Amino acid sequence: MKYDVPYKIFLTEEELPKQWHNVRAVMKELPDPFINPATLQPCTADDLRPVFCDDLIAQELNTTDLYIDIPEEIRDFYRMYRPSPVVRAYNLEKALDTPAKIYYKFEGQNTSGSHKLNSAVAQVYYAKKQGLTHLTTETGAGQWGTALAMACAFYNVDLTVFMVKVSAEQKPHRRAVIQTYGGKVIASPSDTTEVGRKILAENPNTGGSLGCAISEAMELALKTDNCRYVLGSVLNHVLLHQTVIGLEAKTALDKYGVEPDIIIGCAGGGSNLGGLISPFMEGKILNQNDIEFIAVEPASCPSLTRGKYAYDFGDTGKTTPLMRMYTLGSGFIPSPNHAGGLRYHGMSPIVSKLYHDGYITARSVEQTKVFDAAIEFAKTEGTLPAPESSHAIKVAIDEALKCKETGEAKNILFGLTGTGYFDMSAYTAYHDGTMTDYIPTDEDLQKGFDSLPQID
Amino acid sequence: MKYDVPYKIFLTEEELPKQWHNVRAVMKELPDPFINPATLQPCTADDLRPVFCDDLIAQELNTTDLYIDIPEEIRDFYRMYRPSPVVRAYNLEKALDTPAKIYYKFEGQNTSGSHKLNSAVAQVYYAKKQGLTHLTTETGAGQWGTALAMACAFYNVDLTVFMVKVSAEQKPHRRAVIQTYGGKVIASPSDTTEVGRKILAENPNTGGSLGCAISEAMELALKTDNCRYVLGSVLNHVLLHQTVIGLEAKTALDKYGVEPDIIIGCAGGGSNLGGLISPFMEGKILNQNDIEFIAVEPASCPSLTRGKYAYDFGDTGKTTPLMRMYTLGSGFIPSPNHAGGLRYHGMSPIVSKLYHDGYITARSVEQTKVFDAAIEFAKTEGTLPAPESSHAIKVAIDEALKCKETGEAKNILFGLTGTGYFDMSAYTAYHDGTMTDYIPTDEDLQKGFDSLPQID
Repeated sequence: MKYDVPYKIFLTEEELPKQWHNVRAVMKELPDPFINPATLQPCTADDLRPVFCDDLIAQELNTTDLYIDIPEEIRDFYRMYRPSPVVRAYNLEKALDTPAKIYYKFEGQNTSGSHKLNSAVAQVYYAKKQGLTHLTTETGAGQWGTALAMACAFYNVDLTVFMVKVSAEQKPHRRAVIQTYGGKVIASPSDTTEVGRKILAENPNTGGSLGCAISEAMELALKTDNCRYVLGSVLNHVLLHQTVIGLEAKTALDKYGVEPDIIIGCAGGGSNLGGLISPFMEGKILNQNDIEFIAVEPASCPSLTRGKYAYDFGDTGKTTPLMRMYTLGSGFIPSPNHAGGLRYHGMSPIVSKLYHDGYITARSVEQTKVFDAAIEFAKTEGTLPAPESSHAIKVAIDEALKCKETGEAKNILFGLTGTGYFDMSAYTAYHDGTMTDYIPTDEDLQKGFDSLPQID
Repeated sequence: MKYDVPYKIFLTEEELPKQWHNVRAVMKELPDPFINPATLQPCTADDLRPVFCDDLIAQELNTTDLYIDIPEEIRDFYRMYRPSPVVRAYNLEKALDTPAKIYYKFEGQNTSGSHKLNSAVAQVYYAKKQGLTHLTTETGAGQWGTALAMACAFYNVDLTVFMVKVSAEQKPHRRAVIQTYGGKVIASPSDTTEVGRKILAENPNTGGSLGCAISEAMELALKTDNCRYVLGSVLNHVLLHQTVIGLEAKTALDKYGVEPDIIIGCAGGGSNLGGLISPFMEGKILNQNDIEFIAVEPASCPSLTRGKYAYDFGDTGKTTPLMRMYTLGSGFIPSPNHAGGLRYHGMSPIVSKLYHDGYITARSVEQTKVFDAAIEFAKTEGTLPAPESSHAIKVAIDEALKCKETGEAKNILFGLTGTGYFDMSAYTAYHDGTMTDYIPTDEDLQKGFDSLPQID
């Protein structure tokens, strides 16, 4: 073979993971339990049952099984677009003139344009199995809503998507994709829910936030027969499903004897990062490797780098269970001039705990720098990346350039979570020079922190 | 293994074709030669040199070598996104309840969203090798323009794209992708060229056509130093490059002992169809198989099914060499209500000759029926298809349903040339019920035929 490794390392469909990886089973300290805000006691499965599907609740609360079987039906759906490739970025390396070896796990080769489909199909499968006929959800950048619409079309389940208003306006075509798969889209905040009307009364001009949209979707789920709410990130079961990313990546790299020195993922709610690092993190926790894990977040929504590790609600309407996580406060709404996803006020409890305990480091990056990196990547590697994924590209390039200075040939792996085909308004703003950076002031952040519940 | 064949048959990068396939070398009768409209003599390489790159001219005129080497640099670029998978449409088969086995060669997994990149990289490589610094082209649906912009960014060659005005207006995001890769986009007809000004003077409200855009791009190439014109379809060398599609498909199917009974491709200029069928057509010409080849075209632009087999210009401005092909006349401009690509007045001379000699059949389909098929495909197979590709899906479904009636388990292969992510306006029109079908009347067609040159 001409190259050390192929440009794209594909596994066969028989090598698709048969089980998800539950890193909580090896964590030395577990994330703190969810708390029922009414009783201030740890949540039980019964507390969660009105909102979530039963099988997903079992996964959510499972802290003991390191591996959890992937049902055959879900693996069959995965066969339509998985295993996804680990790509060696030969051309980016050449352009950077770095001794580093850069790999990326590419999750964008399906119509949702991202990794979100990995959990969407699982969640809809379990909902269907339970006999549900309707699901509700929120979507920010739109990838989750698209993924869920695809899965709902496949399993013939009705879907209502509350789409963050600023995204619905910026991305009418993303909305049209969801509609093509039969999903109903409502711009959030809306006047279709009590919580939406309340948020609009307080802040009529808001562009919305994931936190608002979650509140509306939960309200509709509770009011609708045979319906549950599903979420695309943050929760333990979502991270669990996303471990197919890390499991495939590890198998692919193991085939060629490649051990990553650095693993980088963008982090909004944490599902991609958590899924990518999970099997590698097991090794780190068990002192079998010394990989540097880097979470990259937007400077405009810096939950890890500037947030507090505290119990908080998952939504603006303060209706979810309380989760201990790095958070900017459920009242924090990022500036509408922030282009991509990664707009969530909090961070997955698993990722938060691993960060708190020193297993993960975090960096925040400004969006114009992110788009600089995105365009360098597009021109050398071909693929036009999603703005979210480009946060990871930015730090991968930074690390590769450090290697150029030191002469180290580190193996860098990052998650390329998706493509930017529905983000061209943001690219156009970048080209036109109308894109600006936004870094919240301490006063801005304090407003969010003021919304934190006083329970600690 | 659980299945006869995997969902997706991937080849390794080492199995990438090392040579393109030149079907003219086995055709019993060759397509008629290009004619220089000034001399009415067959075109020589010297006639073509002011407009086209030297190596491409050599390929254009080569009727004797069955295989032509793919340079290593082009194969390295192909490694970034090829080999592309042959997918078994298990879920579509199930939804149709057909005994037929449906396969599709999927060319949409790159940022151009289509097969167009296969020829773009080759053409830019040869231009760079010749020392050119600037290229011009036209684009209709925008896939070719995107593909060429990607290749030009990679090889650092300047690019000006004349984009059919109706597409530029319907698809601002497609334009933004081209700009992201550094391409300059001009809506055609424009006032930047003599021919554009002339067309605008005659028809100020025209939405443009590929034929107009070609005239403008050729004019700019002739007026610009160190510049040539490149075309994304129709020509022999473009079909040659696209044979990577058919070669990979044949290798993949051969691995599993699958012999197609029917091969279906959408046909605008013919590059996808020609590339897909080339190695299978060799077998048919040599009486080694009896595959049914079906070209599918839009009812609104029916060059094969209602056109004339005649010498015609490739462009509205009547500046190209004359080619003998099925044509509606270079003056034919399809209705702007036609959503997708496949808007070209003529058909590749190779495909035209094979059709004329009875090796290929052709069907025309109406666009609302095409979108019915597209949505059935999206919901069952996951991928949201391009409107162009959906012409082939429509006929593949028709053939699979015939098998259901007869009980035959035919192997159907079609080309899924691309994804519809930049075609959501058309999907929205379909959902809204504002999409209409357009079939030109005989009088409409006569206007186009009146523009044919009188040389036969």
